[in-house]
Amino acid sequence: MGSGEFKPLDEKFLIEYIQATPSLYALLGNNLQDLQIKEVGDGNLNFVFIVQTSSGSLVIKQALPYIRCIGESWPMTKERAYFEASALKEQGRLCPDHVPEVYHFDRTMSLIGMRYLKPPHIILRKGLIAGIEYPFLAEHISEFMAKTLFTTSLLSLTTTEHKSAVAKYCGNVEMCRLTEQVVFSDPYKVSEYNHWTSPYLDKDAEAVREDNILKLEVAELKLKFCERAQALIHGDLHTGSVMVTHDSTQVIDPEFAFYGPMGFDIGAFLANLILAYFSQDGHAEQGNDRKNYKEWILKTTEDTWSLFDKKFTALWDEHKNSSGDAYLPEIYNNAELQLIVKQKFMKELLHDSLGFGAAKMIRRIVGVAHVEDFEAINDAARRADCERLALNFAKMLLKERTKFQTITEVVLAIQNSYS
Amino acid sequence: MGSGEFKPLDEKFLIEYIQATPSLYALLGNNLQDLQIKEVGDGNLNFVFIVQTSSGSLVIKQALPYIRCIGESWPMTKERAYFEASALKEQGRLCPDHVPEVYHFDRTMSLIGMRYLKPPHIILRKGLIAGIEYPFLAEHISEFMAKTLFTTSLLSLTTTEHKSAVAKYCGNVEMCRLTEQVVFSDPYKVSEYNHWTSPYLDKDAEAVREDNILKLEVAELKLKFCERAQALIHGDLHTGSVMVTHDSTQVIDPEFAFYGPMGFDIGAFLANLILAYFSQDGHAEQGNDRKNYKEWILKTTEDTWSLFDKKFTALWDEHKNSSGDAYLPEIYNNAELQLIVKQKFMKELLHDSLGFGAAKMIRRIVGVAHVEDFEAINDAARRADCERLALNFAKMLLKERTKFQTITEVVLAIQNSYS
Repeated sequence: MGSGEFKPLDEKFLIEYIQATPSLYALLGNNLQDLQIKEVGDGNLNFVFIVQTSSGSLVIKQALPYIRCIGESWPMTKERAYFEASALKEQGRLCPDHVPEVYHFDRTMSLIGMRYLKPPHIILRKGLIAGIEYPFLAEHISEFMAKTLFTTSLLSLTTTEHKSAVAKYCGNVEMCRLTEQVVFSDPYKVSEYNHWTSPYLDKDAEAVREDNILKLEVAELKLKFCERAQALIHGDLHTGSVMVTHDSTQVIDPEFAFYGPMGFDIGAFLANLILAYFSQDGHAEQGNDRKNYKEWILKTTEDTWSLFDKKFTALWDEHKNSSGDAYLPEIYNNAELQLIVKQKFMKELLHDSLGFGAAKMIRRIVGVAHVEDFEAINDAARRADCERLALNFAKMLLKERTKFQTITEVVLAIQNSYS
Repeated sequence: MGSGEFKPLDEKFLIEYIQATPSLYALLGNNLQDLQIKEVGDGNLNFVFIVQTSSGSLVIKQALPYIRCIGESWPMTKERAYFEASALKEQGRLCPDHVPEVYHFDRTMSLIGMRYLKPPHIILRKGLIAGIEYPFLAEHISEFMAKTLFTTSLLSLTTTEHKSAVAKYCGNVEMCRLTEQVVFSDPYKVSEYNHWTSPYLDKDAEAVREDNILKLEVAELKLKFCERAQALIHGDLHTGSVMVTHDSTQVIDPEFAFYGPMGFDIGAFLANLILAYFSQDGHAEQGNDRKNYKEWILKTTEDTWSLFDKKFTALWDEHKNSSGDAYLPEIYNNAELQLIVKQKFMKELLHDSLGFGAAKMIRRIVGVAHVEDFEAINDAARRADCERLALNFAKMLLKERTKFQTITEVVLAIQNSYS
């Protein structure tokens, strides 16, 4: 297999495909007698088949040449599977504990064969809605971000390696353009795709479209997203791209991967934790006011950045004599200079992360794609109250991001949203 | 021709090549009877042949697979000719008045056939050393920069066009690495390639290597050079890359072209005018104190930025309803917002230009490649005095660049260097 044309999978063809692909067939014990197949994709972007026999299991993911969005079809290159597979392999090499293994990739078929993340793995976002605490989440996700972002940046690479990788991922431009539209553009103009909890947030959505300072700031972030090839970023690192159990954290779905600003990944994760935080009051019920859970989310938000900072700078220290081309040891390897270089870098990275995170929060409330954290709140008035608090916090954060010196100050500002 | 292998040109082979290449042969009237050939390259990087008959003329430029530097040979990809030819064609399309026409390109031979810029065209740097005023220089070079930088940026391009062009020029990484080394690294460490007017500037060179704040700032600029794909830049826009007559200004030699920060081009040109300014006292002689010429250089420095600002923002205004992806008209087309967006953009671009310009001044005094403006001052003590003033100004500018609000303030600071 692998020659010929793209063909959307169905069960019958999937079985033929696996039988003809030794690397996949072997994982199932070269025997399909007790085969079980389950399609679990949401059908909007990709087919996702869980394939199991008594001897083994795997997941087959196939990208389709469109995405479906609020009922409409939006053409979208299936070449994204190539960039997803490339990024999965690269991130898996750098952080194998937190990325599922890729067994097989077929570019013609836009098909990835990868490790099945078995139950009790669930999507992190669903865990956050259910109020489940994940004690290792901050530790794990900061590990993933520190390793993947540091090692693919000029802190680790030569400019030769870097420019070669940048050029490759320029090919994923269609996915970048989708982000540009839905994160940086649509929420700030009238668009058929936008929606919000109406009528409650009508004025709020309008205020976003008429806020010149907000638009000035989001333009700066958009240009940084388009122009700054800082590291290989996941490109969509929200809580729906992470699968978790109590002690496992796995990052999936890097189909938006390209060389972009590190803060876009860090901000995406922080922002989705903060959205989860603001949604909790909508999930509170008699006997469970979610107060403690909200504290856990804030602590995880704070720990995610703090641990990222610690791990990232530790990698930097480890590599200070064999670093990439950004800071040559012959010039920068003196203790005082190292310190101010790192402090400056991390402060700017925090500000970038807060800016991108804020933009991602805004777009989840007044843009096309919302988050289940809020959508699962059935009472629209109650949902709108939660969303408005999140939106106002995000607007402040986008405008004032450079005034925050530490993540602790950010967490305090979140808590003060209620006063 | 065009098939086969790379072969360095000699006169005999050049004649065969032209005869076998209709586009070149026709320019000479399809007749080589009164042919004149003159090799005028400096022999360090490229062969440059001027080819003339009574019917026409052209220049043949061939890149060699190395550069020679202070007597040593440094391997250097001859593929740079491909990027030079690409950039010449692109810049010529955008600004035909100030870029010589490309007649022919042969990638295998790393050979460009282009318009011969006839006498009295001379290299601008030589004109500045001779004390010649060019009344249209600021007008012309600002036109070149505004048109080439605006039109290749996201102010004019879609992100699809932009990422495709970025990927292409990532291939010119070897030339970028040369810049990284000689501009952003070598001057800040002990390097066999560095030299300066010794012993006069020994302490000054050492001070550059031990200035932590300077190194912190130059690291920021280096990362911007490596990571920020803002526009197709010339990459080496000093006064040796410009040929002039009283009323013609032609930009040549874009072999360092790639997608980088606009300020690198603008800063290079401004910096080399400022170096010319500081060198003038070394060229003063009885009966010509160069005072008026120094004023002309400062006026040209100021006008270059002011006219660039005017032309660049005028292009922006012209395209405000059909712009690139940076600022979509549906979001940014309101007068008040347009104004603050442009002001912010131009202020940051000025700061980038001042930073890159300062780094380029420093490297011309304590790095590997110096400028003839200073080298032509035979008295070493006198030369060192001029260079020290330039170096101190550049160090201040690199550290304090964001404090300057206008080019007028920069010019005042240059004048105050003597007090």
